[in-house]
Amino acid sequence: MNHVEICFSPADYALYESGFELVVVIDVLRATSAICTALENGVRRIKPVAKVDEAREWQSKGYIAAAERNGEIVPGFDMGNSPVAFLAKANELKGETLVLTTTNGTKAIDLAANKKTVVIGALNNLNALCEWLLEQNENVLILGSGWKDKFNLEDTICAGAIADQLISSGKFAANEDSTVAAKFIYRSARDNMFSFLKASSHRRRLRKLNLNEDVKYCLTPNNVRTIPILKDGFLVPLHAPVQTSPAQSPQKLPLEQ
Amino acid sequence: MNHVEICFSPADYALYESGFELVVVIDVLRATSAICTALENGVRRIKPVAKVDEAREWQSKGYIAAAERNGEIVPGFDMGNSPVAFLAKANELKGETLVLTTTNGTKAIDLAANKKTVVIGALNNLNALCEWLLEQNENVLILGSGWKDKFNLEDTICAGAIADQLISSGKFAANEDSTVAAKFIYRSARDNMFSFLKASSHRRRLRKLNLNEDVKYCLTPNNVRTIPILKDGFLVPLHAPVQTSPAQSPQKLPLEQ
Repeated sequence: MNHVEICFSPADYALYESGFELVVVIDVLRATSAICTALENGVRRIKPVAKVDEAREWQSKGYIAAAERNGEIVPGFDMGNSPVAFLAKANELKGETLVLTTTNGTKAIDLAANKKTVVIGALNNLNALCEWLLEQNENVLILGSGWKDKFNLEDTICAGAIADQLISSGKFAANEDSTVAAKFIYRSARDNMFSFLKASSHRRRLRKLNLNEDVKYCLTPNNVRTIPILKDGFLVPLHAPVQTSPAQSPQKLPLEQ
Repeated sequence: MNHVEICFSPADYALYESGFELVVVIDVLRATSAICTALENGVRRIKPVAKVDEAREWQSKGYIAAAERNGEIVPGFDMGNSPVAFLAKANELKGETLVLTTTNGTKAIDLAANKKTVVIGALNNLNALCEWLLEQNENVLILGSGWKDKFNLEDTICAGAIADQLISSGKFAANEDSTVAAKFIYRSARDNMFSFLKASSHRRRLRKLNLNEDVKYCLTPNNVRTIPILKDGFLVPLHAPVQTSPAQSPQKLPLEQ
């Protein structure tokens, strides 16, 4: 029986990472939702970098770079980590390499980068990700990006959703209290996540910044089929994405025809 | 408006402690439940020490010492951190100084020791503690002891219970997602904590050790009125304890008559 466990934030990673070679990194509001969305919609690959200076360096070499800190676009960049903005710019970004740095998400990716497999999770790609995880014969550690190393509610709900699917299959077990708690919170929140999260600190932060459209998008499960995976320092789609418009039998399409 | 916030475990303390001079330390299974129970039942004072060696040193000077690691009494000591055992030995312990080291709880007390006020919380003294906290004009940080620095469910439920009472009074507000989540978990668990916790890692650990009696005791709210407070390195009762046997109008009694 494989294990699935949840680490709430990068601050606790060292306590949980032992015994795992497959890590799912989550930053629902908004980095990993944006990454799934960008790769689903034609971006060729994403270079996650932990620091703004690093993003500037890539920018100066001619790459398209996006940088967010504290919910806002960093001055000198055209984009932050808004999935809605990535969608709006899909034509411009098609086939491109995108360099991305965000407050929490890219830091968490960096932390897990030495593992054999690092994939990106969000509510947006929930089912596709779980189906794939169920095909692997690996212990799965879900790493929430948190908010500046603190526990956050939206990543915990998403992590709980993933753990719930894996455990319900009968192929995975969980031992940690963090996993038990996250699964419980997810089950309580799933029918009305937007309202459940109204007390969350990050939603308040984003509401102040008029980012409710992004929040609604990020809290929509299964509008994306892409599973981003880290390969040689770049996030690329694990498979070619599948049509996401209402289709009963999704047809697989190559990413960059 | 004062703030009440929850830090799930010692590992995250540095992220949360700023702005707080009053810390409530919690280790429901079993250190802080045992501390409340011992002081309620006549122990004069408790010296919490972080290391077993330190407890041995005190023991060699003639003090009564109790030491627990991984749920078991450390060889060379007569007691661990069982509140039921402390109750059974109440006559022997009356008026004594007790030196105590435990896997998680005494470490958390040590961490908070430089704050102006450190008090001890458990489900056992829930109402007494909350009534007192409501009389203070201080921000309150609740520090869970966790399990070896990891998040644990029972401390989170107790922390959520305290935060819930303080916030419900209208005199306290909470900003952190950890506080929102703990309050929510408590509200879901409160009607049947014993069964809610059956999946918790620590309960499984204690069940293996035949400590179900202790678990039941520790999960019983309000069977104690003592609030232990740290003074000059010793935990002492903040007030004289109040009769806990069924009494509609509890009468205050001095601790050591």
